[in-house]
Amino acid sequence: MNDPSLLPAAEATRRIAAGDLSATVLTEAFLARIVAREPELRAFVHLDPALALRQAARLDETRKAGRPAGPLEGIAFGVKDVLDTADQPSQYGSAAWAGHRPRTDAACVALARRAGAVILGKTVTTEFATRHPGPTGNPANPKHTPGGSSSGSAAGAGAGFFHAGFGTQTAGSILRPAAFCGAVGFKPSYGTLHRGGMKVMSESLDTIGVITRSTADAATVMAGLTGGDYGTPGAKPGRAPKIALVMGPNEDLAAPETRALLERVAAAAAKAGATVTPVTLPPAVAAGLAIHALVMNGESAQALAWEYDNARAQLSEILRETLARGTGYSLAQVNEGRAAYAAARAAFADVIKDYDAVLTPAAPGEAPEGLDWTGDPGFNSLWTLLHVPCVSVPAGTGPRGLPLGVQVVTAFGTDAACLAWGEWVRQVAAG
Amino acid sequence: MNDPSLLPAAEATRRIAAGDLSATVLTEAFLARIVAREPELRAFVHLDPALALRQAARLDETRKAGRPAGPLEGIAFGVKDVLDTADQPSQYGSAAWAGHRPRTDAACVALARRAGAVILGKTVTTEFATRHPGPTGNPANPKHTPGGSSSGSAAGAGAGFFHAGFGTQTAGSILRPAAFCGAVGFKPSYGTLHRGGMKVMSESLDTIGVITRSTADAATVMAGLTGGDYGTPGAKPGRAPKIALVMGPNEDLAAPETRALLERVAAAAAKAGATVTPVTLPPAVAAGLAIHALVMNGESAQALAWEYDNARAQLSEILRETLARGTGYSLAQVNEGRAAYAAARAAFADVIKDYDAVLTPAAPGEAPEGLDWTGDPGFNSLWTLLHVPCVSVPAGTGPRGLPLGVQVVTAFGTDAACLAWGEWVRQVAAG
Repeated sequence: MNDPSLLPAAEATRRIAAGDLSATVLTEAFLARIVAREPELRAFVHLDPALALRQAARLDETRKAGRPAGPLEGIAFGVKDVLDTADQPSQYGSAAWAGHRPRTDAACVALARRAGAVILGKTVTTEFATRHPGPTGNPANPKHTPGGSSSGSAAGAGAGFFHAGFGTQTAGSILRPAAFCGAVGFKPSYGTLHRGGMKVMSESLDTIGVITRSTADAATVMAGLTGGDYGTPGAKPGRAPKIALVMGPNEDLAAPETRALLERVAAAAAKAGATVTPVTLPPAVAAGLAIHALVMNGESAQALAWEYDNARAQLSEILRETLARGTGYSLAQVNEGRAAYAAARAAFADVIKDYDAVLTPAAPGEAPEGLDWTGDPGFNSLWTLLHVPCVSVPAGTGPRGLPLGVQVVTAFGTDAACLAWGEWVRQVAAG
Repeated sequence: MNDPSLLPAAEATRRIAAGDLSATVLTEAFLARIVAREPELRAFVHLDPALALRQAARLDETRKAGRPAGPLEGIAFGVKDVLDTADQPSQYGSAAWAGHRPRTDAACVALARRAGAVILGKTVTTEFATRHPGPTGNPANPKHTPGGSSSGSAAGAGAGFFHAGFGTQTAGSILRPAAFCGAVGFKPSYGTLHRGGMKVMSESLDTIGVITRSTADAATVMAGLTGGDYGTPGAKPGRAPKIALVMGPNEDLAAPETRALLERVAAAAAKAGATVTPVTLPPAVAAGLAIHALVMNGESAQALAWEYDNARAQLSEILRETLARGTGYSLAQVNEGRAAYAAARAAFADVIKDYDAVLTPAAPGEAPEGLDWTGDPGFNSLWTLLHVPCVSVPAGTGPRGLPLGVQVVTAFGTDAACLAWGEWVRQVAAG
């Protein structure tokens, strides 16, 4: 393989450790891919190739001096621009933050650098990770949305611009764009990556995760960031899983290709030995989902109180409307919503204990045409409020030839199992 | 009453609404108190009287123009310097952040301004709200610590520098200093005030609250900030409470005066009609407390990853040690700790359902002598990890004539009851 940017992350670090590859050569390879396609994709809101190469050169020098970096030496990251970077602007997708230069890196970015990562640039986010889109196109067809809000990290991962893009999810902002872009989106259990230095909207929901080209890369980077055990996705699990097939409270949103996809994947899983049981989630779970938006918007209205009062003209019309609505919710309503979330978590824990994993749509269908709307998070919000790990894995294409994905969800805290069963499902779906 | 700074917050806003008092006159009265005592107390890390008066003048002008501000018009706040302010430096008690000027206010500060508050200045915090102390003295005796980490907000509230000081609590950083300074410290239910724009250490624990001169003022400002119902502390409750007397897993930390105090207050409560039942908390609660520090330090090590890697020489030795320890904890250990917290919450919910409130020490005893150590949070960490509302109310003095307080805790989400029973206990303790 001549292009080192195509190597799995674990193989890249292995070669760097063996002296067969340098961080500089690896970074140059990613930059070459970026140069070729960034003009049509616009995944980055800030990209400084010279800065990326200086980071790589420093890693190479440090290694030569006998002090190798951490487990992610040379691994390339894109950072969603709701996460602070000390050396690059951090503008949260908002004109109200134009030119902002934070003093420090966000916690997760600092952990990435500590592990030896190269931060290539800042990736496009929708406005404050809410609805108003950025300019990014889908790598499978730039006239279609990459999804949002982690638009640039998904498009970049899909286009092979980096090993991993940091994403954040409040409703469906990691899983949906990953599915749209043919990438792997991984939302770890809530609380895994500290949100310090992130422009947090909903404290009850916001979760930092990664978008990668493979489940193996997701495991590599999550382990490198946290020191946790994310297993070896793709290693033979020794048995087939017990799968709960959940079309979910929002089944009506599924396009025909998504219904067909889930049927096909479920059949393939059953053929490979899995038990696949259609499951209707209990009312408490649906009740949590029904109040997802109220808590999200109520908390976001607090988060953006300064911007709403001091920079309203710089906010999009749709965000102003959302904040006006959120400001109108009472503390009692938001507290009721949080209590409904907690009840939903308890009810789901009772369901999932009988299964290894949930199989469910990652998105309603292919990426919508146009860049004005990043698509519906209707198959994602539930898993965000449940705080459970979830992964979207590529599973073929739809009627317009755009990527489709399916979502695999496991119990809270079983992140390695989530990646393992996600990879198992991906492989049986690929046939 | 000639000095309007002595008025309860609700009475001050009533007079402002009636045209009998202006925000400017009220602010001037607070500034006069500050000028008199700030040199010996050093409650503020940043104080700009002209800026405070401009805020007040703007409120007065807006009212004259027929557009009165919100429910906290003219109410004076000190803001702990782990919370961002757009118009004042925000330095988190750390040389690593010297001179930092954020673009925006923290969410809670923006909500205060929206309600009409005057932000007098930034109050001293220990380093990143951890252990290394600031220069603040106790208003009852400046040679003694005011406690920490909300040192300046507690000292300022105790000295009458403002109606309310914002505080934050990860272990005992609101309740303990409030008790040391003869003030009221109120930590609302976890999640009430959004932490956007706060330098968060532990996402599982950090809670924003207020330190005031009275429970009534705490209710006034919390209602004004959130729109929530915090009741009318001091209104006759119509019955006496069922009290659980909890000396807690850390009873050994209690000084003789604290043991005597709790006995005296419990006897007074019983005499006033309360049932007072000594309660030993179940093992799951103690198990949560046992792992409090691990989660706190593990999460804080993520929060300060940038500072640890890039500004280590500007951190105190004790913080460097704490971060080294926190960096060493595995993700699995931190996750186990969080699970223990969740189990402790469930166990406590089962205990508190038989009582109106818990009565427990607010601190081991009087404020320690000297400014090098802000005292032990051993009677506070438990209630922080339980996420329950708690209030410390003044209850006499100790052997050295310094303030003592007791702590009243209620079930999660019952914040108005917490303030009501806290005030009931304060009154019966005062005899």
